[in-house]
Amino acid sequence: MRLAVIGAGAVGRSVVELAGEYGHEVVAVADSSSAVVADGTGGTGGPGSDGRAGVDPDAVAARKAERGIVGDDDPADALAADYDVLVEATPTTLGDAEPGFSHVTTALERDRHAVLANKGPVAERFGDLRAAVDDSDGEIRFEATVGGAIPAVSTVEDIEPGHVTAVRGVLNGTANFILTRMAAEGLDYDHVLAEAQDLGVAEADPSFDVDGTDAALKCVILANVLSFGAVDDPTDAREFTLEDADVSGIRDVPGSALRLAAEDGRTVRLIGEATGEAVRVAPRLVPENGTLAVSGTQNIVQIETSHAGRLNISGRGAGGPETASAVLGDVGRLE
Amino acid sequence: MRLAVIGAGAVGRSVVELAGEYGHEVVAVADSSSAVVADGTGGTGGPGSDGRAGVDPDAVAARKAERGIVGDDDPADALAADYDVLVEATPTTLGDAEPGFSHVTTALERDRHAVLANKGPVAERFGDLRAAVDDSDGEIRFEATVGGAIPAVSTVEDIEPGHVTAVRGVLNGTANFILTRMAAEGLDYDHVLAEAQDLGVAEADPSFDVDGTDAALKCVILANVLSFGAVDDPTDAREFTLEDADVSGIRDVPGSALRLAAEDGRTVRLIGEATGEAVRVAPRLVPENGTLAVSGTQNIVQIETSHAGRLNISGRGAGGPETASAVLGDVGRLE
Repeated sequence: MRLAVIGAGAVGRSVVELAGEYGHEVVAVADSSSAVVADGTGGTGGPGSDGRAGVDPDAVAARKAERGIVGDDDPADALAADYDVLVEATPTTLGDAEPGFSHVTTALERDRHAVLANKGPVAERFGDLRAAVDDSDGEIRFEATVGGAIPAVSTVEDIEPGHVTAVRGVLNGTANFILTRMAAEGLDYDHVLAEAQDLGVAEADPSFDVDGTDAALKCVILANVLSFGAVDDPTDAREFTLEDADVSGIRDVPGSALRLAAEDGRTVRLIGEATGEAVRVAPRLVPENGTLAVSGTQNIVQIETSHAGRLNISGRGAGGPETASAVLGDVGRLE
Repeated sequence: MRLAVIGAGAVGRSVVELAGEYGHEVVAVADSSSAVVADGTGGTGGPGSDGRAGVDPDAVAARKAERGIVGDDDPADALAADYDVLVEATPTTLGDAEPGFSHVTTALERDRHAVLANKGPVAERFGDLRAAVDDSDGEIRFEATVGGAIPAVSTVEDIEPGHVTAVRGVLNGTANFILTRMAAEGLDYDHVLAEAQDLGVAEADPSFDVDGTDAALKCVILANVLSFGAVDDPTDAREFTLEDADVSGIRDVPGSALRLAAEDGRTVRLIGEATGEAVRVAPRLVPENGTLAVSGTQNIVQIETSHAGRLNISGRGAGGPETASAVLGDVGRLE
């Protein structure tokens, strides 16, 4: 498939780097201020170093590193390029979820597919997105928006949303790293947060992760999959946004709570849960050696089914190549 | 989709019972000596109690329980019925994998799809099956042959076999139940086996499970998926059968070995591993609270990937409804 990759952060760059290995061709790459469109599709990009037509991944990486741009074309040129699948990998934005939402609907209006790594459009405007899909010959997929490399969305789709009663899990690696270290070292939140920031596991402003917003967005997306997937007529589905989520983070979890839990063979994890009716994220007590007590930056998703019991899927919940592999798995499902 | 279900054991009967819930219609059911084919497709079966056309699940279950037959038609009538997907749920046989192999190829020759719960054809004659698929408009799927409800095959397919370096795990619930009880109670193999047989967890002849044959067949199937999935030309793929597997079971694991392991924070599990080059099944030491140390009849599959690290998927590895849900998930993927 011919891919236009919008967004040149860790995920976008990994998609550009790995696409050829999956038999796909990157015909355009854009960041917020620049773009490169492959020759023959109206741009200045040369053939790849592997001899394939399409954008040269190494040249994109080099320009991004040296000059802070991906190429000499305009971002609009990438959106107008001749692609089969638009990969939306710009940063997650809330509310109107722009500019990601418009990037995706532009692709759908052209009857092209879109694969999202950006949580905004599927968490905040799922109903608008479904409506745009209904008017298009293109489809959308968004495995990369939930749990990085973990196939949460496609597994729920295969089981069929009508036969899934709930999905819960540990969906934020930063919060999980902090809770794991607090329990292991008997340290307080502020101390471990500083350590996580030094290690690059936590952002300078960690709010999005430690307040539960990121985990809540993932659960909202799963709730939308469960709600819309269980009905024949989309107008019968309940749409969820971040506002519908009941969220508390880990800032107020005292080290003493973890010490008390440990004496009882338990520990604390930030658990998100989604059903077709509700979304909740909160620190919860779980068995110390239990399935939900994944360590460090690992994520886990538990899928409760009507006929097949409980499925547990754990793995790397973040990372450029990990998330890019979910994006490319989605592209494969569109073939 | 219209299903013909061949085999009326726990899995076949669960597929018949659940198909309607997944929006499918069972038009024929056969066991080894009898069949029922729905009216309008040349048989004696009445409409379902839910008013749908097709075979009545309750009537099939009642006849099987009371008279040991599923209906008054001939098994050949079911194979000749007007179905979209043939569900092969007869017992696994080795060597020529008959009669399952012929059931599947008959469907493919008619350009119909086949979904297998029977491990024989995909473990013992994968190359012949691929060749039959290449000559057909029908496809085959076989998620139910590996790990019951666990989506092992489809997850490997989505990641793409060329990007999976190995698949390993605990793939036999009977052997795992025995090892779990031996470790928990400090009992020897023979004692726990007798207990498992009383509970119906182990067969009167437990060889297939405790000697590692069942786990090996599942690993052989995964090795074939990895080998054939990584090449463009099937003739370049290495085909695996049970004969290619290096297998040792759990009969010779002494209780003392489990006690020694426990002193070291470890335990013993029957671990199967498949790559595109080899298949191995043997009892192995694993961390007592580690990911591979699933308890009782649980199964776990670990997928090692090139770009996304390790994925762990655990759940119920056996059971009628659990395995039927994998079959119906495959049917859904064929739509």
